[in-house]
Amino acid sequence: MRPSGRSPDEMRPITIEPNFTRHAEGSVLIGFGDTRVLVTASVEERIPPWLRGKGEGWVTAEYGMLPRATHTRGSREAAKGKQSGRTQEIQRLIGRSLRAVTDLKLLGERQITLDCDVIQADGGTRTASISGAWVALRMAVDKLIAKGDLAADPIQKQVAAVSCGIYQGNPVLDLDYDEDSNADADANFVLLSDGNIAEAQATAEGATYDEEALLRLLRLARMGCNEIFAAQLKAVGK
Amino acid sequence: MRPSGRSPDEMRPITIEPNFTRHAEGSVLIGFGDTRVLVTASVEERIPPWLRGKGEGWVTAEYGMLPRATHTRGSREAAKGKQSGRTQEIQRLIGRSLRAVTDLKLLGERQITLDCDVIQADGGTRTASISGAWVALRMAVDKLIAKGDLAADPIQKQVAAVSCGIYQGNPVLDLDYDEDSNADADANFVLLSDGNIAEAQATAEGATYDEEALLRLLRLARMGCNEIFAAQLKAVGK
Amino acid sequence: MRPSGRSPDEMRPITIEPNFTRHAEGSVLIGFGDTRVLVTASVEERIPPWLRGKGEGWVTAEYGMLPRATHTRGSREAAKGKQSGRTQEIQRLIGRSLRAVTDLKLLGERQITLDCDVIQADGGTRTASISGAWVALRMAVDKLIAKGDLAADPIQKQVAAVSCGIYQGNPVLDLDYDEDSNADADANFVLLSDGNIAEAQATAEGATYDEEALLRLLRLARMGCNEIFAAQLKAVGK
Amino acid sequence: MRPSGRSPDEMRPITIEPNFTRHAEGSVLIGFGDTRVLVTASVEERIPPWLRGKGEGWVTAEYGMLPRATHTRGSREAAKGKQSGRTQEIQRLIGRSLRAVTDLKLLGERQITLDCDVIQADGGTRTASISGAWVALRMAVDKLIAKGDLAADPIQKQVAAVSCGIYQGNPVLDLDYDEDSNADADANFVLLSDGNIAEAQATAEGATYDEEALLRLLRLARMGCNEIFAAQLKAVGK
Amino acid sequence: MRPSGRSPDEMRPITIEPNFTRHAEGSVLIGFGDTRVLVTASVEERIPPWLRGKGEGWVTAEYGMLPRATHTRGSREAAKGKQSGRTQEIQRLIGRSLRAVTDLKLLGERQITLDCDVIQADGGTRTASISGAWVALRMAVDKLIAKGDLAADPIQKQVAAVSCGIYQGNPVLDLDYDEDSNADADANFVLLSDGNIAEAQATAEGATYDEEALLRLLRLARMGCNEIFAAQLKAVGK
Amino acid sequence: MRPSGRSPDEMRPITIEPNFTRHAEGSVLIGFGDTRVLVTASVEERIPPWLRGKGEGWVTAEYGMLPRATHTRGSREAAKGKQSGRTQEIQRLIGRSLRAVTDLKLLGERQITLDCDVIQADGGTRTASISGAWVALRMAVDKLIAKGDLAADPIQKQVAAVSCGIYQGNPVLDLDYDEDSNADADANFVLLSDGNIAEAQATAEGATYDEEALLRLLRLARMGCNEIFAAQLKAVGK
Repeated sequence: MRPSGRSPDEMRPITIEPNFTRHAEGSVLIGFGDTRVLVTASVEERIPPWLRGKGEGWVTAEYGMLPRATHTRGSREAAKGKQSGRTQEIQRLIGRSLRAVTDLKLLGERQITLDCDVIQADGGTRTASISGAWVALRMAVDKLIAKGDLAADPIQKQVAAVSCGIYQGNPVLDLDYDEDSNADADANFVLLSDGNIAEAQATAEGATYDEEALLRLLRLARMGCNEIFAAQLKAVGK
Repeated sequence: MRPSGRSPDEMRPITIEPNFTRHAEGSVLIGFGDTRVLVTASVEERIPPWLRGKGEGWVTAEYGMLPRATHTRGSREAAKGKQSGRTQEIQRLIGRSLRAVTDLKLLGERQITLDCDVIQADGGTRTASISGAWVALRMAVDKLIAKGDLAADPIQKQVAAVSCGIYQGNPVLDLDYDEDSNADADANFVLLSDGNIAEAQATAEGATYDEEALLRLLRLARMGCNEIFAAQLKAVGK
Repeated sequence: MRPSGRSPDEMRPITIEPNFTRHAEGSVLIGFGDTRVLVTASVEERIPPWLRGKGEGWVTAEYGMLPRATHTRGSREAAKGKQSGRTQEIQRLIGRSLRAVTDLKLLGERQITLDCDVIQADGGTRTASISGAWVALRMAVDKLIAKGDLAADPIQKQVAAVSCGIYQGNPVLDLDYDEDSNADADANFVLLSDGNIAEAQATAEGATYDEEALLRLLRLARMGCNEIFAAQLKAVGK
Repeated sequence: MRPSGRSPDEMRPITIEPNFTRHAEGSVLIGFGDTRVLVTASVEERIPPWLRGKGEGWVTAEYGMLPRATHTRGSREAAKGKQSGRTQEIQRLIGRSLRAVTDLKLLGERQITLDCDVIQADGGTRTASISGAWVALRMAVDKLIAKGDLAADPIQKQVAAVSCGIYQGNPVLDLDYDEDSNADADANFVLLSDGNIAEAQATAEGATYDEEALLRLLRLARMGCNEIFAAQLKAVGK
Repeated sequence: MRPSGRSPDEMRPITIEPNFTRHAEGSVLIGFGDTRVLVTASVEERIPPWLRGKGEGWVTAEYGMLPRATHTRGSREAAKGKQSGRTQEIQRLIGRSLRAVTDLKLLGERQITLDCDVIQADGGTRTASISGAWVALRMAVDKLIAKGDLAADPIQKQVAAVSCGIYQGNPVLDLDYDEDSNADADANFVLLSDGNIAEAQATAEGATYDEEALLRLLRLARMGCNEIFAAQLKAVGK
Repeated sequence: MRPSGRSPDEMRPITIEPNFTRHAEGSVLIGFGDTRVLVTASVEERIPPWLRGKGEGWVTAEYGMLPRATHTRGSREAAKGKQSGRTQEIQRLIGRSLRAVTDLKLLGERQITLDCDVIQADGGTRTASISGAWVALRMAVDKLIAKGDLAADPIQKQVAAVSCGIYQGNPVLDLDYDEDSNADADANFVLLSDGNIAEAQATAEGATYDEEALLRLLRLARMGCNEIFAAQLKAVGK
């Protein structure tokens, strides 16, 4: 039995509150159960140096966790003077995932930065970040289109992510903190609305796993992402 | 006339939402108009090295601003690898202000950290932080009392803060961003519920000021803090 | 056709030169084709602070690339003053992979650090590092056993890793630099000699992929790792 | 009674030695009693990036304390790799104070940096820095005028600063270290020679204070600054 | 007697393996006994900012030691976030030494960086680095000449370096680790093939020394460098 | 002819002002012509971790240059966040030089730190630092002896340092900035009052040099150090 009483293929409630803050071109507070991440999309009319003159744009992400988003207070990365390896790994994953659904040529010479800040953590902060980032990105691109700044829509598909894992021998969907900290294996899948995979990562923690388990986790992820795709569309009013 | 249409001695609406997040011993989302700061109070049973063996506790603060809390995106301090001088100045001020109402002997050998993270900025983020931090601290101390961990209440008074300034020649209360970025002088007052002053800071920006103006600003601050004191009490249910 | 003329399931030549340096408890120069990584295993009779008193040991890894291991000179991380996100991601992966085959209780209160330094890069540096690290770790543990410092062998299985990817629409094994920099998708698998999976990571670069492709990549990886397992055993004389 | 035997409104001897070093455009060793600060003004024909094309100049300050300026040796900030929050707070205050008397348009597109290095500390290092910086700045600007580089004098007023505090219940002027480390409240005022205020900062340390005390401290500061204004004029030969 | 049984004026075997790696314009693995340093020369068509417009090139060096090049594992400088004083001292010395034989005007507006990475340390790593760097530099310059990028050869002489020291009262040549860690005095000489001196550094460790000892050390160094000059020529096929 | 009109073996005036500051156990302002360095000796009853339990003390040094000690303003190392390679090289040299005349066993388990801060630079800052540091160290040790904290005097000899160089083909003593920035070769010698050498460093800048030149430079240094030894003794009243 899962600590939360959920069935193995049951997501936590997904909540998406658009326009949570006012300054950003896109802004959303996304919740996967008690996990809550504020994602903003900021459009800037500049690109990284290594892209200059190529006629393309860039989508990137930064990730942070408020010190007391967690059960016990973690130290503030700005005060320590560096971002942890975990933080960098996550923000690289978020950026790659959103670029997988963006046509950078169509975006033109501008950069969109997705800031994902975890307000409250209960497992799945990176997957909630990716799923919320799509909504913030969609909102920001819609504003660019409305202003006439884009000739064509650079975002043709949705992207969402969810964690799965093997908990007490059973594959389960959308791990919360209690499960995540005791899982035998822990996976994150980033899936597209056309059914394709952008990223699959499955890591043995307490025990290694076999091919069949990997496939079972992927199928659970597919179920979860379908729910997220629906919630994303509703949040952007489509 | 003020850009917002407010009268010179009129505060923006004060909103205080306690228990905005669940893990911290105290947690509050405070708003001064569009400025919104999430403050958490974290109790830890350890003290800084230089306090060991003195039988006292410590209250300290950290401050941060989410990159897109502002009109244009600012860089993330964790990514830059250091906190700005402004950030350090503010978090030192918050810490001093809260210590001004805390009996550190009565607190015992533990530390309470007040994390003030600006979700949305529209002027007055440091004063909203101080005002919200008192609520979070009060909640955390109430939990310690309820658990029987404190012999006596170490917090006997309230502390609140508000900014004032000289805008187009007139002293006004609670500057928003439009006023703050064009003020001749900019002041922050940290006041106690017994009427005393914990901190007064008044800085000439566009023009220097005289003693009469300083006093007028202080009196406006007193009016503002009285409103905040009432909102604080309501938030903690007293 | 692959640039190197290899067939899709053909590994580059695997070379493992044990005792490449003399001071370390384990030392190996591993080559996957032109990729060459020096891996050393260092045994220290101390453990990280958070493990103290638990009666367990620790296995960890650090990764670096010499500035001119690559086609054009990269900047030296020591001179820049920080390790890149990529470096941290890789060294975390190496550490996890080796811990997947180590019984930390049986290791006792000591730490083994695997330093993986890339002398020459031609794709697959992280997978060569993991594969070589197992040999260095095995050598170091054998020395501990020979000295009578261990009651039982903490390493019961082998671990190896290999990259696969989709290049010009075809799944291929063991990408070299030419393929890696043009692949549609890029995957790394960390497999155990008992057939289980320790880590699967598959990332879309130019194009997303489907479940069938993921499985095909995994099967290629299995073929590659079997070759590596044999080379590892030969290198340690078993 | 004050530890030094001074009366409450008595400054320590003010000493100003111009041209203490030879390379800088302005250079002065200022003493408030045993506190001694070396201030240099450096003129550079460049401006910060954010000022380019505005036709204005900039005045800024940096502050440092030699490791053994104090009773016990403090660590060297260059060796620790960062400036403390206190240092940054002070150098921001010095810069603002000098800009309050400088017409940046008249200065033209150049920057003047005021380096304030504390040779010996006995309380009041930031106020001595500001007071000495005016002399160094005046000297540097006089050289620019003499060379014909300025059409009009950008400095029309003097600025000086002094600390005051409440020591054993009594407001006193110009705290030395013994008083400063035991004061109930500690204030710094930056005043102009036209009587206006550039900055007022009053901080409760041991005890909060009331409006009357704030005014009394301001009046003491006014007496002190008048002495400093006279010493400044004498130092620049006017 | 020397621990290695060598006579006082006897070098350890000098080994120079050119083309140890493939990407760099010059690459060599040099050995002085068990000390082994990989040196690469990288040619870049850019120069440091302060040289722009002078029509000259630049030769510089970076030095690093793999964590387990030594008897016990040292910490990785990239992970610590800074290069030690020792590292910086050594890389400055290497750069100066190579510039002493390079005509920077003839090199033209390009930079050659010599990366010296110690694979295994047994004393004399800086002198082996300098001696190997000449070979790598020579190879890189020969490639530029072969491509027709240079009008004339900018390197007219050889440079080599060797350590000497006073061990148990006797001047000896080419200290190994056992001698180096117990020497009374420790010297490094950088000599040119025309007999001149580029750098002499002699440091008292356990005991100071006199002029006669200094001269004796210099003469030993001359003998050692003559051997190195011959090995360098052989390595570049001249 | 030398720019200053000095003869080749003529030192600049040596000035030593003891007790320039009051808090340090030893304090001196030393001048070699226009070069002026403030040196303080701080005694602390603690030792570095790696010396614990050995019954010895430690002497170490830190070096800094005020930003405008030089002709044009240099950046502040504390603001840049790191010490340059040059700074670290110099402070390591100063520490070694003073340890060469100190019996660390007799010093007992305490550390003396010599802070050398350059107030004004005109060539020879490192040699002035070493020469002044001996005076500050002597003063600090005399205080320890006077308090009865030392059984025997740990300093039996004097140490001094001076630069020499080859300027326009001629060996000259005590280079000033004009000479130093145009010298063919630049040397620093650290000599003891018993005639022995603690450190010899001679670097080719514009041109390499031969053995005879090295000896001539050493003899000039000996003349200079004899003058410094006399000035040191006078400064400490012996």
